[in-house]
Amino acid sequence: MDDSINAANEAITELMSSGQPVLVDVVRARDVIDVLAGDSKVLLHAGPPITFDEMTPPMQGSCIGAVLFEGWAQNEQEARQLLAHDVTFTPCHHHGAVGPMGGITSPNMAVIVVENRLRGNRAYCTMNEGIGKVLRFGAYDASVIARLEWMRDILGPSLAQAVRLTPDGYALTPLIARAITMGDEFHQRNIAASALFAKDMGPLLARTDIDRSVVADVLQFLADTDQFFLNLAMAACKSIMDAARTIEEGSIVTAMTRNGKDFAIRVSGLGDEWFTAPVNTPKGLYFTGYSQDEACPDMGDSSITETFGLGGMSMIAAPGVTRFVGAGGFSDALATSDEMDEIVVGHNANLSIPTWDFQGAPLGIDIRKVVATSITPIINTGIASLEPGVGQIGAGTVRAPLACFVKALEALAVKYGVTSTDD
Amino acid sequence: MDDSINAANEAITELMSSGQPVLVDVVRARDVIDVLAGDSKVLLHAGPPITFDEMTPPMQGSCIGAVLFEGWAQNEQEARQLLAHDVTFTPCHHHGAVGPMGGITSPNMAVIVVENRLRGNRAYCTMNEGIGKVLRFGAYDASVIARLEWMRDILGPSLAQAVRLTPDGYALTPLIARAITMGDEFHQRNIAASALFAKDMGPLLARTDIDRSVVADVLQFLADTDQFFLNLAMAACKSIMDAARTIEEGSIVTAMTRNGKDFAIRVSGLGDEWFTAPVNTPKGLYFTGYSQDEACPDMGDSSITETFGLGGMSMIAAPGVTRFVGAGGFSDALATSDEMDEIVVGHNANLSIPTWDFQGAPLGIDIRKVVATSITPIINTGIASLEPGVGQIGAGTVRAPLACFVKALEALAVKYGVTSTDD
Repeated sequence: MDDSINAANEAITELMSSGQPVLVDVVRARDVIDVLAGDSKVLLHAGPPITFDEMTPPMQGSCIGAVLFEGWAQNEQEARQLLAHDVTFTPCHHHGAVGPMGGITSPNMAVIVVENRLRGNRAYCTMNEGIGKVLRFGAYDASVIARLEWMRDILGPSLAQAVRLTPDGYALTPLIARAITMGDEFHQRNIAASALFAKDMGPLLARTDIDRSVVADVLQFLADTDQFFLNLAMAACKSIMDAARTIEEGSIVTAMTRNGKDFAIRVSGLGDEWFTAPVNTPKGLYFTGYSQDEACPDMGDSSITETFGLGGMSMIAAPGVTRFVGAGGFSDALATSDEMDEIVVGHNANLSIPTWDFQGAPLGIDIRKVVATSITPIINTGIASLEPGVGQIGAGTVRAPLACFVKALEALAVKYGVTSTDD
Repeated sequence: MDDSINAANEAITELMSSGQPVLVDVVRARDVIDVLAGDSKVLLHAGPPITFDEMTPPMQGSCIGAVLFEGWAQNEQEARQLLAHDVTFTPCHHHGAVGPMGGITSPNMAVIVVENRLRGNRAYCTMNEGIGKVLRFGAYDASVIARLEWMRDILGPSLAQAVRLTPDGYALTPLIARAITMGDEFHQRNIAASALFAKDMGPLLARTDIDRSVVADVLQFLADTDQFFLNLAMAACKSIMDAARTIEEGSIVTAMTRNGKDFAIRVSGLGDEWFTAPVNTPKGLYFTGYSQDEACPDMGDSSITETFGLGGMSMIAAPGVTRFVGAGGFSDALATSDEMDEIVVGHNANLSIPTWDFQGAPLGIDIRKVVATSITPIINTGIASLEPGVGQIGAGTVRAPLACFVKALEALAVKYGVTSTDD
């Protein structure tokens, strides 16, 4: 059994390291995600399936914002009623998409379209709104809605025009390979990748026929939004992992995600099934005036970056982030990646990390190794306030719960016709 | 004696770490450098004083290019004659300027203007031409001259307009502090700083009334020129060191520079005097088709970055550069900065290096420590071909020769009225 699993895992990690995610367009979600195309009221959310009642307050806040943005309701009270009775919820992951934090994605939000040229599959993600009061952290006041409208009407179409000037789309792997040498881990730190992306968009936008005051506004937003690349990284990782999981064998984690209630993983040999366990609450550093007591439990599809070996898995690539997420100094960053190294099957030769003595990023989380060592993946994450409307209050790290890996390994043992290790 | 030297050194390093270099303008050299303003034919060059005959072939090549660019001669032969008889040469450093490699600066070249707000003094440097055939490495064909003309007529005035839109100029210290956490050491690696600069110029240029095809060309050049920030870093370091050396006491190195023949240093307690020794030839990695035999001896004012504690001194900040300059892996980068740490008097609290466990960049090279340990500063440098017209053939590291530090220490002993250590 181990031989055939190992062979499958090798094929999967080969697909992972040779992924070719390319930014090809920015469109409205309804144009590319079937379930959002009709007249019924549907919202995508982060994590495995969940009902509105079960959602954390900030995730509910995001839903309210989305309903107001779509014009389905005129105020918060109307929105809450609608959400309780008339809105259908479905995970981003079930529709080729990923969403940060609440992950709430509604039909008319702008989404980036990333194509993995290796297999031709596509992945979608909303764009990063910047910091402060933002929908993904549960804020939904007028400024939040106005920004979403600007992103739908101005930012999205402008970037789409710019990207279409690149004959084959805008390749993301070369940029990720550069930025991982520049202190980014692509989850809580994307400053290098965002700067590289912004400077490449400059001449493209200047060559469009978009009004130059709009060009200035778009370039200013990109220049100011250090985490802009996070959502591109998420879509890139989703497109890579979806191609990799076409091999329906082996023990590699193909998705990790959280909805504020459950942490869930998918495993290559176990198809679309989610294996869940209650989420942990992130520990970290808080913005002035906030504390751990106010921290919302872990949520978001952004841990698709860790699934691909970035984020907390590649902590050593980004020693600058360790102080932001309260994870110590350089030696702590090194210890973290060295620990993560124990639960993966290899290294990504295309993502060499200078601070890891040029070793490639950790590649391919193997649930057998997770269970054998009890070492669970570490995730770098933003921390939302439990109170809806407040938004982000800090950043930190959180561990995936061991229980979902144990459940998955038991299912894998059944699939391969061997008795559980407990027997 | 040691107490008064130590006190002076402390005051000097305080001026160094609190420097506030700000990009305020881009103009023609003749507009800001008096010696270039008149009708006589004057060229600035890198390093301490040197005659045309003594220059390395690539430095002579740069001179030919400058003469053709200025229209002082119509062809190479005429240019050589003019250079041998009718051109006056003077070091950049004597005129508030610094120049990369050959450092050849002629009256109508565009120069950036950096003001150190701490003291109000200004420093000048030409702009980075990109890679391949470029004047600074001794190339002078029609493409080189055409690029210099474009930089004079388009790039310079465009950036000047953009920078003037920032009310107080474009502050360089915050950018350097960010980019040192992103793998730059600001001599052979400026990719992060150049990207941050380019993305900030985008919205500014879009807000000018410059023709948008020109805006596109300028942003494309900035996006493509990973070393663009080197020259900004050089001018910033020059402005900082010139402010620091207003304290005319102590044993801190205030300039290190090379003209292809001599390596020269200035020391805080010894004013404008240059202490020289024959230069070494860099060792490193060569572009395909070239080898160490063809390497030109060390030249350029760019070692002003090491004088301030960047470049090779901060090797650990840029493990990504070690493979480019042939300086080994991560542990070698660490060993290099740890070694450099032995010859400085402190650390720059404003330039924290995550990969050095957040220690500040090395600050203040003390000639007493250099002589006592025989550890000389290491410099990350480009390598020019000995043959003029070829340009850059590699990149590597080179050591400052010990002899110039010994000479300076002897002079310092005389100044402070103590006998030489040899007596």
